[in-house]
Amino acid sequence: MSGARPRKPAATPPAPAAILRISSRNYSSWSLRGFLIARLAGLNFRTITVSADDPSTRAELLNNASSILLPCLEHEGAELWDTIAIAEYLNERFPDSRMMPEDRIARARCRAISGEMHAGFHALRSSLPFNLRATIPNFTVWSAARGDLERIFTLWRDCLAEWGGPWLFGARPSVADAMYAPVVLRARTYNVALDETCEAYARTIEAWPDLREWIDAATQEPEPRITELELDAEF
Amino acid sequence: MSGARPRKPAATPPAPAAILRISSRNYSSWSLRGFLIARLAGLNFRTITVSADDPSTRAELLNNASSILLPCLEHEGAELWDTIAIAEYLNERFPDSRMMPEDRIARARCRAISGEMHAGFHALRSSLPFNLRATIPNFTVWSAARGDLERIFTLWRDCLAEWGGPWLFGARPSVADAMYAPVVLRARTYNVALDETCEAYARTIEAWPDLREWIDAATQEPEPRITELELDAEF
Repeated sequence: MSGARPRKPAATPPAPAAILRISSRNYSSWSLRGFLIARLAGLNFRTITVSADDPSTRAELLNNASSILLPCLEHEGAELWDTIAIAEYLNERFPDSRMMPEDRIARARCRAISGEMHAGFHALRSSLPFNLRATIPNFTVWSAARGDLERIFTLWRDCLAEWGGPWLFGARPSVADAMYAPVVLRARTYNVALDETCEAYARTIEAWPDLREWIDAATQEPEPRITELELDAEF
Repeated sequence: MSGARPRKPAATPPAPAAILRISSRNYSSWSLRGFLIARLAGLNFRTITVSADDPSTRAELLNNASSILLPCLEHEGAELWDTIAIAEYLNERFPDSRMMPEDRIARARCRAISGEMHAGFHALRSSLPFNLRATIPNFTVWSAARGDLERIFTLWRDCLAEWGGPWLFGARPSVADAMYAPVVLRARTYNVALDETCEAYARTIEAWPDLREWIDAATQEPEPRITELELDAEF
């Protein structure tokens, strides 16, 4: 030991150059999807929460916006303000990340069901607002949202049967799991009954370490409550 | 000539193996996008129109569907029922097609604005229904749809300024032009005034041979009229 050069203090690692701007951990399902996708890519990034007092951010959270501009990824001069765009950009940039299924047919299915979530299911989104912290045990799902849920459960069952689970495309999580993870959390918030297959899938999602980290952050660093998004609020 | 072997009759070329199922040439902006994207990829495909009497197809055309399942591309065992999924699948499968901008930053922007069209602009879609054959000269665009149009025109102007036109990303059409082409046609149907820059872009889109072919087919082989989508109908 004597004669050893004095140790330099550990260098502070540089802040990640990539930034993911999000609107809310508690209320924004799209922000969660973007976060999970960036993690799937193995990206070194930091997350910045834009204030919900910003009018356009608030409109997005209230499902009133023309365009969903968050999450937004800034990476090496590129700016991507759409979740699927983030996924495809990162998949192309990090081809070894395996964030998309390796098999061509599975990858096509992954893209089709991810796109379906991206463009559709408006009844589900508007009538079961995403709200991580809430639990509403006696919620009644009206028929249009029920139809959305049935379609989603069918998509899950088909994938789990074809690729063997526990994730939608087999042994590893993919972009599609990130796209549908918020539906699992909505099912928990609103106490939606799941059949055995979908329940097993929901538990896989709930045990996803990156998702747990997000939930812990949402719970431990509570954000301002947005009354219009609290369905148990009395009007 | 004498002694030449008799000519065989020209072989009938095999029908393309790839199929693009669409809902309507006149009423479906998503079908048009899928068609333009398949053409950008250089894909050899044929188009099949699903009957608008099919209840789920009709719901899509009437903007009432949970999920948009058309256009749907069937290619070498893969089935893709989402427009962005079709674009990314074909871009990956035909890397020489240059259907996405070659520059990484431009490609990121192309994906961001394509995703924005895919997930947003609901006021525009619902209040200015896509209808190729119609002309409604005295239409009043209400404020929410006006906001959507202003946002879209800003996206166009930014791209045209940054990449020099005449297409959104320079000298060649890309996936983003396919995504926004239906907005140009909506502007014509509803007589929306365009500034000089956007008017020049609209003319580039209107002169796109693949788009002309689609319009000619919609005009020459008229599909059944869907009364609920004809805003000049008297109720």
